[in-house]
This record gives sequence, structure tokens and C-alpha cells, in this order.
Amino acid sequence: MKKVKDFLWKPGMTAEECVDRFDSLGYQAIELYEASEVVLKMKDSGAKIFLTFTSNMITSGLRGFFAQLIKLGAVDVIVTTSGSIEEDIMKAVGEEFEISSFNADDVYMHEKGENRIGNLLIRNESYMKFEDKMSDYLKKIYEKQKRIAVSELLKELGLMLNDENSFLYQAAKRNIPVFCPGIADSAIGFHLFMFQQDHPDFIVDTIQDIKNAIFCSSNDERKGLIALGGSISKHYAVFSALLSGGFEYAVYMTTSHQSSGSFAGATTQEAKSWGKIKDDAEAATVIGDVTITFPLMMIRVLEKLKQKGLLKSI
Amino acid sequence: MKKVKDFLWKPGMTAEECVDRFDSLGYQAIELYEASEVVLKMKDSGAKIFLTFTSNMITSGLRGFFAQLIKLGAVDVIVTTSGSIEEDIMKAVGEEFEISSFNADDVYMHEKGENRIGNLLIRNESYMKFEDKMSDYLKKIYEKQKRIAVSELLKELGLMLNDENSFLYQAAKRNIPVFCPGIADSAIGFHLFMFQQDHPDFIVDTIQDIKNAIFCSSNDERKGLIALGGSISKHYAVFSALLSGGFEYAVYMTTSHQSSGSFAGATTQEAKSWGKIKDDAEAATVIGDVTITFPLMMIRVLEKLKQKGLLKSI
Amino acid sequence: MKKVKDFLWKPGMTAEECVDRFDSLGYQAIELYEASEVVLKMKDSGAKIFLTFTSNMITSGLRGFFAQLIKLGAVDVIVTTSGSIEEDIMKAVGEEFEISSFNADDVYMHEKGENRIGNLLIRNESYMKFEDKMSDYLKKIYEKQKRIAVSELLKELGLMLNDENSFLYQAAKRNIPVFCPGIADSAIGFHLFMFQQDHPDFIVDTIQDIKNAIFCSSNDERKGLIALGGSISKHYAVFSALLSGGFEYAVYMTTSHQSSGSFAGATTQEAKSWGKIKDDAEAATVIGDVTITFPLMMIRVLEKLKQKGLLKSI
Amino acid sequence: MKKVKDFLWKPGMTAEECVDRFDSLGYQAIELYEASEVVLKMKDSGAKIFLTFTSNMITSGLRGFFAQLIKLGAVDVIVTTSGSIEEDIMKAVGEEFEISSFNADDVYMHEKGENRIGNLLIRNESYMKFEDKMSDYLKKIYEKQKRIAVSELLKELGLMLNDENSFLYQAAKRNIPVFCPGIADSAIGFHLFMFQQDHPDFIVDTIQDIKNAIFCSSNDERKGLIALGGSISKHYAVFSALLSGGFEYAVYMTTSHQSSGSFAGATTQEAKSWGKIKDDAEAATVIGDVTITFPLMMIRVLEKLKQKGLLKSI
Repeated sequence: MKKVKDFLWKPGMTAEECVDRFDSLGYQAIELYEASEVVLKMKDSGAKIFLTFTSNMITSGLRGFFAQLIKLGAVDVIVTTSGSIEEDIMKAVGEEFEISSFNADDVYMHEKGENRIGNLLIRNESYMKFEDKMSDYLKKIYEKQKRIAVSELLKELGLMLNDENSFLYQAAKRNIPVFCPGIADSAIGFHLFMFQQDHPDFIVDTIQDIKNAIFCSSNDERKGLIALGGSISKHYAVFSALLSGGFEYAVYMTTSHQSSGSFAGATTQEAKSWGKIKDDAEAATVIGDVTITFPLMMIRVLEKLKQKGLLKSI
Repeated sequence: MKKVKDFLWKPGMTAEECVDRFDSLGYQAIELYEASEVVLKMKDSGAKIFLTFTSNMITSGLRGFFAQLIKLGAVDVIVTTSGSIEEDIMKAVGEEFEISSFNADDVYMHEKGENRIGNLLIRNESYMKFEDKMSDYLKKIYEKQKRIAVSELLKELGLMLNDENSFLYQAAKRNIPVFCPGIADSAIGFHLFMFQQDHPDFIVDTIQDIKNAIFCSSNDERKGLIALGGSISKHYAVFSALLSGGFEYAVYMTTSHQSSGSFAGATTQEAKSWGKIKDDAEAATVIGDVTITFPLMMIRVLEKLKQKGLLKSI
Repeated sequence: MKKVKDFLWKPGMTAEECVDRFDSLGYQAIELYEASEVVLKMKDSGAKIFLTFTSNMITSGLRGFFAQLIKLGAVDVIVTTSGSIEEDIMKAVGEEFEISSFNADDVYMHEKGENRIGNLLIRNESYMKFEDKMSDYLKKIYEKQKRIAVSELLKELGLMLNDENSFLYQAAKRNIPVFCPGIADSAIGFHLFMFQQDHPDFIVDTIQDIKNAIFCSSNDERKGLIALGGSISKHYAVFSALLSGGFEYAVYMTTSHQSSGSFAGATTQEAKSWGKIKDDAEAATVIGDVTITFPLMMIRVLEKLKQKGLLKSI
Repeated sequence: MKKVKDFLWKPGMTAEECVDRFDSLGYQAIELYEASEVVLKMKDSGAKIFLTFTSNMITSGLRGFFAQLIKLGAVDVIVTTSGSIEEDIMKAVGEEFEISSFNADDVYMHEKGENRIGNLLIRNESYMKFEDKMSDYLKKIYEKQKRIAVSELLKELGLMLNDENSFLYQAAKRNIPVFCPGIADSAIGFHLFMFQQDHPDFIVDTIQDIKNAIFCSSNDERKGLIALGGSISKHYAVFSALLSGGFEYAVYMTTSHQSSGSFAGATTQEAKSWGKIKDDAEAATVIGDVTITFPLMMIRVLEKLKQKGLLKSI
């Protein structure tokens, strides 16, 4: 059995060395180390990797990191929620989000047109800028295609952006599909609705997109999942892969626990009962805020992949 | 200022008396009491009440209680996730879910065709029964309408069921709209997709349904929200009402905290910065498992409404 | 296997009937029901029952309920933290705690001499009143005994109070030992220290009390544990009983999870590896705020015990 | 207002650079960055720094890091729980803890003499080794002093160990006081009790030690607190400093939330209402597992202190 070792700081230690040392540090530290090992096995086996995240992670600043992971060839399929789409576009067209506080005065913020998300904020202006841009974008897309599956719509949107840190842009450029089954929610949903009011034959087909989701991976290939948080993005990924045999590898990073039966807190263990991940799959669950756990875990992965020459570009 | 009072048991005390006493018991007990007060104010003011829940709550057995609340006229609009639809239908056609354990052997369960959700399970047979029924239902609906908004589809489905404990049935019978923006997920999504393969002109329009969601309430009427858990169901409700001025009353019941910026953990306070609930709205947040907190809170509400003659039927 | 049943409200339903129905409602509802079953088995088997709680539960208003449980003969040994002692005495001498808010202005409260505990507050005056009383109490105890084990000190204190809702009073009257290994903390610790400054031969012996803790139960008798929250109170109880063979029955009610290795979140399962509870013990863990879960669970227990004539008085 | 910036990986980035970048990454990442800033301010102002932790953190392997922090002169006062004492000694005399699993078979572990703490384990042999050693240690201490305050006892114990990674050893060598008000709990408490059985005049005085705790800092000096987890260790530190005016700086790292009034979840905000930390104190709270958050936060602190020449030795 592996021994616990006393953790010691070394001056100038790299983030990689820090996580290397988590291999013998208890509780979530070792789970984080194990998660990085599972992702490395995904890469070593050539698995198709699904990355799922919720919109608050885009707000947080992880957006640029998600885009970088796509650019480096580290992930192959994206599933996310509607807010991620609008916020990625806002930032691509120059808007910025700001640091606020968990104890902010929300009534005062409302008066100032500031919308709080935890300890961050998005200004009303960013939503207005998004609205302006979306009208143009949708007109162009509509001219090409009246009935469109969500992932096709998102690819078109990505191609109209020009921002290295945009995940839509990086995914579109590299033919990485982005799925968003809940697109009818949020500001993006509202603008699609407004556009449809003037163009009743414009159809964003969430059902048709299931085909793309199912066939983006096959029974023959190995599949890996990195699910950040819960929500429809996590569920859609496991559901899609279930139809082609389930995942060989899975990493869940979440703040939720299994005690209330929520899908956010569902464990990789529970997933085995469904065949969502295979009975003998390699899996790890890390409990904690992904703004800390995900970069840390992936930095170790990226450094090791770089050493092996498995990154597309840097 | 209100004093803390020593809680004492009285033989034969009713659930209502128990929650009455929570008015001077600290932490989440008093928050639960306050939540019941907020719901009573919703009813007293004649507000239109949105109830949102996630599919794990349907699995839990709260399904019958949601149906009863609709029947009693206690709620006016439902927003939920895709899993709720399929599970409500499974139970309406005679399937039953079972009590398992949080520590069950998931690999063994998989072999036996048992799918675990926390400490509950759903058998593969229930999914197969659902599949059979859906084919029939969808054929009938397709014959009437090729392009259909989600809430219209769910009303048609509800009218085909015949189960007093089905929320789809009770809602359909009483013209209570049921919204499900993420319907493309889960088994229901898959069956819609399979049907569309054979009937390419069959379109389930999630964008079109936004109109129904926005116009199911108006600026002129008071609005209240009871949001159980997080997910797209909670967000779609606050987003819809935002467009008609936001909620005057809100109760959030959740196991999540605001520390990671998730929408599940977003507080009623944060909602004010967005105008999702009004600056001076009456609001309460109860942290805890809704299988315990929601029935308890609503039993107090129902008893008081009964005393005032405000329930439609019993 | 037990089936999930649709939960339905019945007008006038008692709290007992409500929890009876939790036997077929998922997640924490059924765990709460199971916890009540475990406590009933403790009583049926004649087990010696340890109840542990932390001081915030005394602040909350559960204090009166704990006193009532002792009075009714429902529990046999108490283990708690230092804050519980001082707060029980404050309330016994007429002080009252108040309802505040989780979002209170803490700097303003400090100026006003209000000390916040979650959504409750204790005024500085209550600490001053406690200080006055303690001087008298300690003088009398010192005159009888210079070196005293903690549980003996707490018994003496209990006998000087005269409040039916005081757990120290009820325990002292009924020879129920109250253990508090961490008594050197908080205001009570400080007043013991101040008294010792003037009376250097006054010794409150926490080590000596271990004998009382170990021998308050024996290998020959069955033992049950109801642990509310975590902390030294929970650990001291399991440690004491470990020496006489561990618990046959255990109920843990907590808001903590096992993911960080804290003892608050340690499960009844983990306890088996230590022999803290027996391998084949009956055990249940309920995740949630004890101001809600504990009264609810115990009301069902008390009603059943009353029906069986197993309560000492009412 | 500070802007959110897109996080990007740089090959070979140090742990310090990683946390530097958390200054513009949302949710707990920025809170962790802020916590490191607060600790740097403690050091810049020459504050006396209290570090509190619970025994599970010693089990985890952070023990060596705590010892290193003492050695480097980064902290000045230690407060902990009883389990930390026995586990530090076990490791100092050559015992090792092992990595297990959150889902281990606890009954089987019990048979094998393995005691689980989250995903770690301690063998029965380690407790036996501890028992052997303690008899010797206590005899020597007893010969010097019959009545001893806890921190004096712990200093004597520390001086008998010879392990660079032992926090008791490093603290004893550097005259850093270690407080443990709850020493009567756990195996250490039991061995003190056994020794007292044979030496009735042996008194471990927890009350007397309050003097040392109160006077280890003064009104005139600035004080800072780093509290890991909750429990009696955190409370004793804030209580001690309260008597000399409260903390100017505070960092809380915990997995608990304030919703249930537990002290583990009590915020630095709440502490202000008590004067436990000053009204205008610099404070930060980081929600997450300390095996990840604490090393990461402190590595940034140590690198900056090294650059400033503020570390005693490396």
C-alpha cells in the first residue's frame, strides 16, 4: 500500500512538482493527483475526450484555459450550458467581467446595472453589446441555413469570432464540436427567440443535434470524460456516450455530494450502475472549486504531455 | 427582535405545529419557517407561482406531492428537466422505483439492470416500458401537429396519461404550463430523436416555447418562485420572469452554497443584482435536502390555506 | 426491495405521520426515517444512549428539547462542548438569545455588543450575567471539593440551576452524566481560570474524568449513540465506548461530508473500521441541519415510545 | 475594479506563478490569492501568527509542512486537537500512515487492524507503538513536574522526539507554544489517564494553560490567525486573542459553510461581531480541502518571503 509522505516545500517548485507530491498527501490532494493520472491514461490510450463545464466557469476566467486546451489538442468534444455561449461571445467582442464580492450590496448593484455571479460581476452593457452582435451573426447564419442543429450553429458563431481565448473560436477552427442542449435558456435563447419572431422558419433543432452527439464518438474508440460541475452539460455527455458503450475513463470535479441524489453530486461509482462509465473504467472524483482544482490538475497533465511531445502546439 | 425559544415536543403534535414552532428555532429551522411565510404571502397577494424542480426529485417520490399541489391550485407554472418527464410517464404507466443504498455495489447493479440515483434505483425495464409508450404517444401528437413547442408537447403527453399522481396529467387537465427547455437530454430526448429520424419534419421547438414562458405571466401581475435545487429549470424560470419585471416573492431550497458561483447555490440576494427578483422582494433560502424541507414547509402552507378556504379541492 | 411511494399531504397530519411516510421517500428523507428506527431499536434493546451535541445547538433553541429528552428518560449520557455549558447557564438565569440574520452588519453588531452565531445573536450582557453567577457557583463548589472531575463539576452546577429547560439541571437531577472534555475553552474556561488565579489548588481534572466516561457504560450492556454535528463531543463519545466494545447502534446527524477526512463528516461506515461501532451495528447517517432533522426524527421516536409506555413522564 | 483575466498555462510555470494568476480568476481561486496576501501582510507587519489545525491534517501528510513552517519562522503559536499529538509522535517514532479509499470495506479493515480516516488508514500497530513510547516519556516528565500545563507537557514531549518533520519537535526547539485544550480526548488522553491511575498526583492542567494562551500575545502586538478547519483548536485561538484585543489579520480555510451556525463554518465576517477579529481587520475565507488550498496558498507566501529575506532558514 502507498504510504502518506510528509509534504515539504522546495523553493521555486513548479506547479507540476507540487501536484506530483500530492500523490502521497491525503483526502482531495491525492484524488486530484489521481484525476491527473486518469487524464494522462486517456491521452496515452488515444481516447476521445469530452470536456463539460457550466457557464459560471466561463465567467470565472477559465474560458481562456478551455480555449487553450482545445488549441493544444488536449480535448475533443465540448458540452456546455447556454450562458457559456453568450459570455464567450461577450468577451470575444471586447467586454470584460470584474471581481466583486460574495457580500456585495445587490440592490445597489442592480441600480448600477451590475449583475453578480458569486464574487464576480457582468455589466448590463455587456448584454447590450452581445445583443447587437447576435443580430448580425444570426442574419448571416440564417441566410445560409434555416433549420440548424445547435452544434452547427455554434460552429458558425465560432467562425465569426476572432479571439484566441474564445473556446467557440478555437473549437470551430479545429472542428471540435460544441454541444449545448439547453440553448433555449438565457440571453442567447432570448435572442434566438427574437430572431425567430421575424423569421418564423428559423429553427434551432436541439433534437436533430442528438445525432451529432451520438456519432461524434463510436463503440470502437476509447472515450474519456472530464466533467466540471453538474447540470445538463454533464448529463448530456454521459448520455451521449452511453449509446456508444460508455466511458473507459472519467474525471468528475464538483462541489456537490451524492447525498441528495443530484446529478452534480453523482459519483463515478454511481455512473457504473448505468453503464455510463464502464464497470472497469479508470475514474476519479475531486471535491472542490474547479477554479483551483482544474487548472492545477491540468497543468500536471500538460507538462507531462509536453514532455512526451503529445501537445499540438504551445 | 424575535427571541429564540426552547423547542419542546407535545404529544400528538401536527406537522403544522412543528413548523409553527420553527419560528423561534435557529439556523435552517427558522429559514424554513420564513420560507413558508413567503409562500403564504404569494398566495395572499394572488401571485402567479412558478415551481421548479429537477428530475431526482421526481425519482424521490415528491412527484405525487407536486401533482397534488397542482390539483389543489397551489402552483401555476412548472419548470423542470428532461428526466422528470420520462420518469413521470414511467410511473404513470405502472413502473415503480425502489429504495437502494448510497453504498450499493454499482457494478453488480449494472449486471442486474439496475440504475442508481443516490439511494434509489430505476430498472432497465422501466426505460423499455417508457420507450414502448412513447412511440404511440408521439405518433398521435405528430398526426395533430408537426412543429410543436415543448410546453405544448408536454400538455399533449399529460392528457394521454391517467394517473392522479402524475404532475404532467394534473398540469394538462388544469392548463398549468410545464416548461422543459432541456428536453433534448435523457431518454425523452433520445426518443424524440428516434421519432424524428423517421419523421424529419417533426420539430420540437424549444425556441418557440420562450414566447409561452415569457407570456405566461405579465408585468401587471405579482409573481412568486419556489425553486427546488438548481439547474436549467431554476434558471429558465428566473430568466422568463425577468422579462416581465422579476419576482415579488422567492423561495430557494437547495443543498448548494454560493461559494463556487454555481446557479444552484446562487442566493435570492444575488438574484436582486440581476433584477431577477425585485429589490424589495420577500425572499427566503433554505439549505437542505428538499425531500425533507419541501414537504415540511408546504404542509404548513397547505394547512393555513385550507383554514382560509384557499385550496381548490382536497 | 422497498418501493418509492408518491408522497401525499393529508389535512391535519401529525409530525409522526409525516416521518412515517418518509419510509418510502428518497435521499435524506428515508435516511431520517431509518435513523428514527435505529433509535427505536436502541430503546427496545434497553441500550444505554449517548447524546452528543455542539454549543451552536444550545444557542439554536434545541436546548429545551435536550432537557426534555433527559426528563423523559430518552437518553442516558451527554457529551458536549464548552460553549453549551455557559449558554445553558445564561438561559437558566434568565438571559435570552435572539434571531438575527446570516447577512447582518457585523461591525455594527460589535458596536452594539451583539455577538452573532449564524442567524442568531447573544448579547454581551448575557456574558456578564454568566460571569456574576459563575463566581458564586464556583465558590460553593470549591468549598466542597478542590480537585474535581469535569462531569462532577457539571453536576454541581446543574444542581444549582432551577430551570426545567436546562439540560444541566435535568441531567443533574436524574444522575445523567454530562461530559465536556474541552471545558478549558470559551467563557466557562476563562472563568475557571480566573477562579484558579485566586485559588491555585482548584483543579478541574479532565484526565480523571476519563474514568467516569469509560465506566459509565460496560461491555455487558448494549450502547447506542446519537451524535449531532462533529467536534470533540462526538469523538469523546465514540472513544469512550470503544474501550467497552463499541456501539451496537449509531445515528449521525451532520452537515459535513467525508471528503476531507474531518471527524464531523466521518461516516458510521468509517467508524466500523475502528471498532467504534460494531461490525454488525445498526447505523444511519442523516445529512442536514439538525435544527430540522433532529426534532423531526425524535418526535417520531417519542410518539412511538409513548404508545409503548416507555417514556418516564410527559 | 479589478478585471477577470483569462487563465493560461505557461510551460514550466511555478506554483507561485500559478497562484499569482489566481488574482484575476473568480470564486475560490481569487479568495485563495487574497488569503496569501493577508498572510504576507501579517509577516510585513511583524504580527504574531497563530496556526490552528485538526488531527486529520496531521494524518494527511501536512504534518511535515507544519513542521517546516515552524522551522522557517513563518508561524508563532500552534493550537491543535488531541489526535494531532499522538499521530505526530507515532510518525516521529517511525510509524507510517497509508493511502486507502473512501469506499474501503470497513468491516474487513477492522478485522485487519486498519483504522480508516477518509481515504487514509492508521494501523493498530501504530497505536501500540505510541503506547509503549508514551509510558517512557510520561515517566520522565512526571519526575520533573507533577502538575503541568498542557503546553508545557507538549514542549517536554517535543524535546524528546528527534524528527525534523515533527511539529512538536520543531516547536519545542524554537519555543513555539503548542496548545491543545482538548487533550483529554483520544489515545493521548487515555494514556494520560492510565498514567494518572498509577500516579494520582499527576495533573495535566488545561485551566492553568489558559494563562499561557492569553499571555503568549499582548494588546501591544499585532496578531494574525490562520485557521484550518474548525473544532476546538480554531475556537481556542480566537478566544485567547479576544482577551488581548482580537486579530488584525485572519485567514480561514474550511470545507464548512455558515448555514448551520457551526464554528467550523463561521466566517471572518461573523468573527467581527464578537471582536474576535478587529472591525477593520484584513481577512479572507477559502472554502475547500486544505490539503490542496493550504500548501498552494503558503507556497506563494514562502516564495515571496524568501525573496524578501524574511525566512529564518531553508
